Amino acid sequence: MRILGIDPGFATIGFGLIEADRGRVQMVTYGAITTPASLPLSRRLCQIGTDMEDLLGQLRPAVISIEELFFNTNITTGIAVAHARGVLLYSAERCGVPLCEYTPSQVKLAVTGYGKAEKRQVMDMTRRLLRLQKVPRPDDAADALALALCHARSMTSRLPRAGTARETI
Amino acid sequence: MRILGIDPGFATIGFGLIEADRGRVQMVTYGAITTPASLPLSRRLCQIGTDMEDLLGQLRPAVISIEELFFNTNITTGIAVAHARGVLLYSAERCGVPLCEYTPSQVKLAVTGYGKAEKRQVMDMTRRLLRLQKVPRPDDAADALALALCHARSMTSRLPRAGTARETI
Repeated sequence: MRILGIDPGFATIGFGLIEADRGRVQMVTYGAITTPASLPLSRRLCQIGTDMEDLLGQLRPAVISIEELFFNTNITTGIAVAHARGVLLYSAERCGVPLCEYTPSQVKLAVTGYGKAEKRQVMDMTRRLLRLQKVPRPDDAADALALALCHARSMTSRLPRAGTARETI
Repeated sequence: MRILGIDPGFATIGFGLIEADRGRVQMVTYGAITTPASLPLSRRLCQIGTDMEDLLGQLRPAVISIEELFFNTNITTGIAVAHARGVLLYSAERCGVPLCEYTPSQVKLAVTGYGKAEKRQVMDMTRRLLRLQKVPRPDDAADALALALCHARSMTSRLPRAGTARETI
């Protein structure tokens, strides 16, 4: 099964595609959609939607694993990311790709076995589980691969299953 | 000039179209896009995007006047509205319709002359300026007409002009 992890953002949206087959996982590709700060909000959203639909057309994932949104201190950034995340979900729905949402602690637990793991531990375990030489760059792409792994592991282990995530399709 | 006011929301998105010509304004139509709570998030976003594009195709506005987003107490609702607003901006951009954004106090000032007017005052002035017998229902549609009026008045008066709003195209 081809699982596309998406780390939602506004300036940078990480993506990472893995192939998961009966407990075996393999990295297929990863990268990021970026939008220039010089463009107005609506044009950046349009670029995100267009690039996302192109990506789904190229990669043909069976499912998308996307991070749930939490607001920390910066509400302005949070609003922009929520705008972009709305466009990402809309694009997935338009392309008919099912979505599963996971919280950051579900991802940490699935990838490292510990729900409060440090970011660096999650990245390193992502690298090891996918047998990569280096941690993928940018961080957003590594986060996206971790999200894809989280979904793969939730299907094959007793770790929190997709049932505890909100399946939105 | 046909100005479409949009009051962004998630369950209900108000819209109101006016024709503005050298200081004269006339209501053309108003209403609301609604999404059922029974559907998952991504399907509701998809419906919002599809309905918005249909609406723009039917109404052919020259410009959209949309409210800026502020978060009050309910962050969860705010995130959902920001998702939906992202889809609305994306749809406007896809259809090539320019956008202007106004804050609630800019709308109040433009419609009533007082930036801290009560909601009821704004609605009543909207009704009077558009020579309507009753305040339009739902409230979201009345708010959308007020947004359209705000843009019309910002073009023809010394009230805060669109320059003070963020023009996003």
